[in-house]
Amino acid sequence: MQVIVDLCVVPLGVGVSVSRYVAECQRVIEASGLTHEMHAYGTNIEGPWDDVMAVVKACHESVHAMGAPRITTTLKMGTRTDREQSMRDKVNSVQSLRNV
Amino acid sequence: MQVIVDLCVVPLGVGVSVSRYVAECQRVIEASGLTHEMHAYGTNIEGPWDDVMAVVKACHESVHAMGAPRITTTLKMGTRTDREQSMRDKVNSVQSLRNV
Amino acid sequence: MQVIVDLCVVPLGVGVSVSRYVAECQRVIEASGLTHEMHAYGTNIEGPWDDVMAVVKACHESVHAMGAPRITTTLKMGTRTDREQSMRDKVNSVQSLRNV
Amino acid sequence: MQVIVDLCVVPLGVGVSVSRYVAECQRVIEASGLTHEMHAYGTNIEGPWDDVMAVVKACHESVHAMGAPRITTTLKMGTRTDREQSMRDKVNSVQSLRNV
Repeated sequence: MQVIVDLCVVPLGVGVSVSRYVAECQRVIEASGLTHEMHAYGTNIEGPWDDVMAVVKACHESVHAMGAPRITTTLKMGTRTDREQSMRDKVNSVQSLRNV
Repeated sequence: MQVIVDLCVVPLGVGVSVSRYVAECQRVIEASGLTHEMHAYGTNIEGPWDDVMAVVKACHESVHAMGAPRITTTLKMGTRTDREQSMRDKVNSVQSLRNV
Repeated sequence: MQVIVDLCVVPLGVGVSVSRYVAECQRVIEASGLTHEMHAYGTNIEGPWDDVMAVVKACHESVHAMGAPRITTTLKMGTRTDREQSMRDKVNSVQSLRNV
Repeated sequence: MQVIVDLCVVPLGVGVSVSRYVAECQRVIEASGLTHEMHAYGTNIEGPWDDVMAVVKACHESVHAMGAPRITTTLKMGTRTDREQSMRDKVNSVQSLRNV
């Protein structure tokens, strides 16, 4: 089962700036080799369910290891069985309709 | 690593009523034996990370098996290393302050 | 247009315990007179769109006024035009199917 | 109060393909003149709170007007009082740390 997720990891108890922790998550995601793309409020990742979820867990473990005592994450997860669809397909599908 | 999640599974392509699919997720969650509580826009579940995530995956698999071709899920996930905290603790902690 | 939301307000830069801020949001929601119910990872609120959104804004304003320099909120929002449905209806609808 | 949101509007009861409805939301957002950027699982929008929330409401109204009987939306909302920060700033802030 393939999944496309939108991952937003928020460390608590580390002050107002969280970019150091988000950058660490980016490194974890990068190291996974999965297709991903960061935006201003999260990161999209696509791949086999277990691989993607292993990355989400690794992000929590890494951010805690950096000293964050608490994390709250918002994750959107999309799966479909009717056809294959990549992150790129989703964006293209909408953009082709906008240009009509 | 313990986690508290808020799970909201939304099947697409099955018509406007989704309660049959949500009820199936409730059965999957129930069968896991994990502490959980449904509310009007999702279900809170707590337990060891891998156990909770296995339930989330089983919900997607069951809802697809029922015939839903597409699912979009929103999941909030909270972990902390500073102390243990249950779903009940979180609610109590806020309610004790409301009564001040 | 009626809406049912699930609101989870997370203050950043205020340390690891956020219950004081969540309790303040509860007071703001309570004062609105809207039907609401807190759970372990947020609060469900139902009512006319503008009234509910005014409460969400008032929560951000109050939490900033308490000194939180940054807030990240996750909000699920459900509307429907086919029929009226309350938070209670949603829960009942699923529970009736679980008992089959 | 400025806000950065991540908006993901999901119409229910319209079949498995939702791109027509997402494209309509893109037109509504575009017409608002607010800074925005679509990604594979939503659209980031920044601007004054009331303007951004008016766009979110207009998206629900437009998607219902197209015939969708039910909508479930996930919205992340970020505000801060310590300093101004654009969507671009957030991405740059993380990317500068990744290159260290």
